Formats: sequence, structure tokens, C-alpha cells
Amino acid sequence: MALIVQKYGGSSVGTLDRIHHVAQKVIAAKEQGHDVIVVVSAMYGETDRLIRLAHGLTPHPEPRELDVLISSGEQVTMALLAMALNARNCPARSFTGSQLGILTDDIHTKARILEVKTEVINRELQKGSVVIVAGFQGINANGDITTLGRGGSDTTAVAIAISVQAKECQIYTDVDGVYTTDPHLVQEACLLPQISFEEMLEMASLGAKVLQMRSVELASKYNMPIRVLSTFSTGKGTLVTIEDKTMDKRLVSGIAFSREEAIISVSGIPQQTGLEGLILHKISEAHIEVDMIAQHTSSFNTIHFTFTVHRREHDKALKIIEKLAVDLKATSVNTNARIGKLSLVGIGMRSHTGVASTMFQALGAAKIPIQMITTSEIKISVIIDEVFLEQGVRIIHQAFELDKLPQTQEQVFIE
Amino acid sequence: MALIVQKYGGSSVGTLDRIHHVAQKVIAAKEQGHDVIVVVSAMYGETDRLIRLAHGLTPHPEPRELDVLISSGEQVTMALLAMALNARNCPARSFTGSQLGILTDDIHTKARILEVKTEVINRELQKGSVVIVAGFQGINANGDITTLGRGGSDTTAVAIAISVQAKECQIYTDVDGVYTTDPHLVQEACLLPQISFEEMLEMASLGAKVLQMRSVELASKYNMPIRVLSTFSTGKGTLVTIEDKTMDKRLVSGIAFSREEAIISVSGIPQQTGLEGLILHKISEAHIEVDMIAQHTSSFNTIHFTFTVHRREHDKALKIIEKLAVDLKATSVNTNARIGKLSLVGIGMRSHTGVASTMFQALGAAKIPIQMITTSEIKISVIIDEVFLEQGVRIIHQAFELDKLPQTQEQVFIE
Repeated sequence: MALIVQKYGGSSVGTLDRIHHVAQKVIAAKEQGHDVIVVVSAMYGETDRLIRLAHGLTPHPEPRELDVLISSGEQVTMALLAMALNARNCPARSFTGSQLGILTDDIHTKARILEVKTEVINRELQKGSVVIVAGFQGINANGDITTLGRGGSDTTAVAIAISVQAKECQIYTDVDGVYTTDPHLVQEACLLPQISFEEMLEMASLGAKVLQMRSVELASKYNMPIRVLSTFSTGKGTLVTIEDKTMDKRLVSGIAFSREEAIISVSGIPQQTGLEGLILHKISEAHIEVDMIAQHTSSFNTIHFTFTVHRREHDKALKIIEKLAVDLKATSVNTNARIGKLSLVGIGMRSHTGVASTMFQALGAAKIPIQMITTSEIKISVIIDEVFLEQGVRIIHQAFELDKLPQTQEQVFIE
Repeated sequence: MALIVQKYGGSSVGTLDRIHHVAQKVIAAKEQGHDVIVVVSAMYGETDRLIRLAHGLTPHPEPRELDVLISSGEQVTMALLAMALNARNCPARSFTGSQLGILTDDIHTKARILEVKTEVINRELQKGSVVIVAGFQGINANGDITTLGRGGSDTTAVAIAISVQAKECQIYTDVDGVYTTDPHLVQEACLLPQISFEEMLEMASLGAKVLQMRSVELASKYNMPIRVLSTFSTGKGTLVTIEDKTMDKRLVSGIAFSREEAIISVSGIPQQTGLEGLILHKISEAHIEVDMIAQHTSSFNTIHFTFTVHRREHDKALKIIEKLAVDLKATSVNTNARIGKLSLVGIGMRSHTGVASTMFQALGAAKIPIQMITTSEIKISVIIDEVFLEQGVRIIHQAFELDKLPQTQEQVFIE
């Protein structure tokens, strides 16, 4: 018996049948003796429909009013779920962000939660009700409705879980949990029973889009365990939590990858200080986000500077760099918009040498040329030609035997 | 220059183009120097869509949650209208019933407004903003969302107009105003420039469904002039206001009618006290609303009791009456579910004799048999066979020369 927060995403509540299904899952948790707080997203497609309405009116809708508009989507879902529960004699009451007291800053369409009031939650839980909360929304100090940005319902759920000191925050979605890599690509990919917050942050920012990153950051800060699991199956999913001893047995947790990359390099720049800052300043001025960065100085004291950007920014970035290359007296600019990024993530690699060499040897044996490398404490990323990406993921998955997960990671599942 | 409240119904905001059109109308009023508060309904069809969702889940949705659900419809419209205005550089801010402070009682799905707070309105008007308010909704003392029942946005508009002491409350709809009778039926029907609250109450409850009756009652109580006018044309519509001298010149304001009636009579009941109460008690126990009632005692001291109900209640009511007739030792029960009601409404008839006789003579000359009559101070209603209903309306319209309205009713139109 515990206090748990469950969050159901848009596809989990996308139809009336699915809302009935969610109601059954909530009742199952109640019948186990748990107190349950449920955070819901808008029904699948609803937020997009509302945004289309706004953009049908005006290309730049007023942000305050956009938040008023799109926050209505979650209000619909929460009422429907409360009805479905009450119809099954399970007392439930729904609350908007405003009614519950989810206080945020003033930044419309991407507000940050400042505080979650617990009075309403505690009152309703004491009555034995399931508390249903609209995800993705809050109010600012002025009483205006705010929204948290795409995927914000995950953050709502984690913030509530922290404020009421829940046992865990369960994020129900349409996948079974977090895998060692994309199971669509590698059939042998394994579901990870457990992963650390840090690994999850590295995995997700690299393309394993299971959880909103802000929610993982928040959970990590307050050490709130998140469980990612499927609405449509009965598995225990993946527990995202602080690093524990059992995790040390794994060198590598998973392989993330992304096809949306482009690489740009400037070669033969005469050495000068402040060069790197100058290049990145010009790029960021154009609101282009840079991902990987590598730099080395050649034996002739000229500098080679390489970075990657999202593929859709390639042309814009190239224009800036070509102009800059003239000023910097660089000898050449090379780009490739048909590359992919492959990243190995694992807390275990921190204290083990040899992970990088195993990775590079495996790629070398398969004759896959590496165009760029960056490393961090728990991640190694390489840029390779896009045509080699899928093969590369499979080879690395095999090289680290990720299809054979250690069995030491069993943990208690709150159900 | 004045403070005015404008209310736009579901068909007036049913598409994005129409919302643009409403924005233009609001701006036109602002450009005249007026302060404008706008009350909006849900986009046409939206409330029904939401109710269908609820009933798709459960036959008896929890009323509190039904209110949470359907109140989202107005939230969408108000945000869209605010965007359309801001996009035209007309500052506007939208507010839910909760944000504005529309306090109601606890009766979910048909709450009554207890108070409208004016702080937010005054603050925003002082900034020069158009204040946009979600119609149809409020909050109870507990902070729960409530709704006012079908057509409740009219009541929201009138309640706000009263609380801020607006000059008038303009109800924009898809008809030009209130006519002497249905213009679809009688081509010569005239638009009434002005009508008294009392007449409007009699007209509307009889089928001229232009305004929600509760809003007229409220406006009458606080003497708030309502103007009914079309969103899609430029006429001055009909001003619903207190009776004034110019109205005395008309005997009759209009003819209302309804096809949805059924008549039931019980004949030959041996005289007994409390009979009428007993019959009506049995009917109302079954949640059937009785409209007209007539009773007379025959020369043999037996009682004839006749009443009308909505046509869809006929079978249910008949069953009850047939059973009761046996207990009461009545000699016969007669019913007719193919009748119509025709009502003449006019403040002028109060002080004039001869209105009823002109009406009955006109029907008699056309050989239309009258099955039942009821009268009040400003209304005479007759039940006639449904096949004669349209003919009857035309004849009476002609008999009172309603196609020739006196020209004394001109008044100032706030625009």
C-alpha cells in the first residue's frame, strides 16, 4: 500500500474504449490498497487540432490565449476519466491546474512549475477519491492559464509525485519501457528493468523519446523514481531511478541513434584565440542549436573545427560558415547532411577502460568509417555515414551482448 | 460612448471565418468609443459533441464531471476570439467563469448565478482591453466548475451587464430579432423594434426561441435592456425592455405557436374536492410537465378536466390518467396528440376588451374549431387541430394587422 502517481499519455486516452481501459487500471491499483493520483494528457490528436484552429485564425496567436485554448484538451480527458471511474463506483474527482494549484512562472506555452499545492489532493485522498489532474497546465501568479510545452504532462506527474512524496511516478505510454536500443531496428533489443537518471537523460536526448527530459531532470533532482510502462500490456516496464550497486554489473545500458544530423567542418584556419567562441556565436545568433563539437590543431598550426546540427538547419548553418570561412582565411569547408549519430550510453563505462576500443574495433571490423567522435563520462557518440547507421547499431548491440541482460536488476514493482 | 455587453451564440462563432467576423463587430463597437465585454458560447455543435463523448462512456455521467467537460467548449471559443482581436491589434483577454469570478449555486448542469465579481472586468477595461468571458459557466463556493444549462450564455451576459451596470446587453444570434410571428410561416411577419420583458417571457415560453427565459427574467428584475440582433446583418434588432408609453398603442405584439402539444381530457368525474391536485400530483410524480389546464363542472355536477403536455410525454401521461380515471370513476378519457397551440401575446390587450372576441371570430370565420382556451393578462392561448395551425396563425396575424406596425417605437441604438 502506497501513494502513487500515474500518468496516461494521449494515445492511452485516445478513444472512449481506451479511457475505460485506463479506468480499469486505476481501479486495479485502488484495489491493491493504493492511493492514486492520475495525470492525463489530451486525447490523441486534440492538442494538434486546437493548434490548427489557432493557426487557422492567425499565424502568430497570442501566447496567453494559446494556453487558454490548448489547456482545454486535458480538461476534456480528465472529466471523461472521472466519469468512467464514477460509473464503476470508484469515487473520482478531476481538477484543472488552476483548481489543484499548480503554480508556474509566466512563460506562456513553455512555463516551468514553481509549486504544486497539496491541500486539494490531500482533502480528496482522505475522502477516498481518486484525484485526476489535467497534465501540461498550471496558472501563473496572475491567475492566467499557462502550459508547460510538449510532453509537459510527464513533468506535471513528476512534480505532483514530488510534492506529495509519492512512492513512485508511473508514466503509462504506448511502449513497454526503455530498451537497449530501438527494437524496430534490432530484434534482440532488451527491455531494461532499470536505468539511472543520468543514463536516461543521455538516452533520451539522443532520440529514445520515451519521457520528456525536463521531467527526468526534475525526478533526478528530487530522487523521485519514474516507472515507464505500457498502458496496453502488463509488464513492469523500466524503472528510472538513482544509480545503485546492481547497475555496476553492466558496462553499457543502451544504444541511442539519430538520423537527423548534418556535419559541417572548417579546415585550415590559421591559429587564433577565441576562434571557437566566434564560430558558435555566429551559429547561435541564427537560433541554430549545435549538438556535437570537435576541434583539433594540425601540425601546421592550423585549426580544424567540426560540429553537427539538425539536418533541417544544414543549409542555414552552411551559409553562415561559408561567409565566416573567408574572414577566418580557412582553406576549406566540408559538409555532409547524410550522416547519422550512434551513441553508447552506460554508467558502467565510467570506471571501465576498453569500452571505446571495443566499439571502434567492432565498427572497424565491419569497415564502417568513423567521421567524428565525442565522449562524456557515460556516453560515447560517433558520426557515421547514414547508410551504415542501422548496421552499426546492430553490430554494437551484439558487441556488448546487450541481448543478454544480467538478471540482477529485479526490483519490487508497486502494483 | 457607453459600457456594453455583447453575447455571441454558437452559430455566430461556429467557424474561424465567423470568429473573424465577430472580431470585426467587436472592433467596430470599440471604435465607436465603447467599452466592450464579450460573452461567447461554444462553437456550434461542440457542446453536443462533448455530451456525446460523455454518453459514449456512461449513460449517467457524474454531473460535476459533465460540467468540467462541457465548460471546455466556451474556453476554446473565448481564446480564439481573443487571438483574432489581438491579431488585429485590439487588446483582448479571455476569462473562464472561474477566472472572472462568476459564482453560482451547487446545482451542476443547471446552476444559477449568485454573483458576478467585477474586479477583473474593471481592471481589464481600465487597461483598454476587450474582456472576453466564457458564457454558460461559473464556479460554486467549493471552486467546482458549474454550468447554467442550455442557453445559459444569455444569462451570463445579462448577469454581467447587471453587475457592471452596462448600458445594454446585446444578444447576437442568427435571427434579426423578435418578429410578430414566425416569418417562415407568415411572410408579412414584422420585426418588433421593441417588446416588453413580460411579452418576451410569454412569447418565448410559447416557442419563439430567441432568448433563454432565465436571462429575460433576470433582465426584467434588474431592468437591464436586452437587444436581440443578428450577427450577420446590420439591423437594430429588437430591444427587450420595460413597458413604455409607446407600447400602449399596440394591442397585440405577436403570435407564438407550438406543434409539440398533446391534449388529454378526463370527463364525467363525480364531484370531489382535491381532485385537480390529485391528478396533477400523479402527473408531476412521473416528471411530466403540464402546460395548459382547464376545468369545468357540468350541469350534472360532474367534472371535466383537460390539460396539455409535450407530445413526447403523451403516452406516459395517458397511462397514468387511464389508471386514475378508474379510481376516480370518470366516464371517459379522450386524448389527441395531433394538436397545436396558438397564442396571442400583447401588453395592450390588458386594458382592451374585444381582443379575445376578434381572435375567436377570425378562427370561427375560417371554420377552425377551438378545442381549449386559456387566458392570462397579456396572453390568450387556444388549442386547435394541428392541420389548422399554420392557417390559424396567418388569419390571426391578418386580423390584428400585425403586418402594419406603428412607427412610434423608434429608439436610440447604441452603436
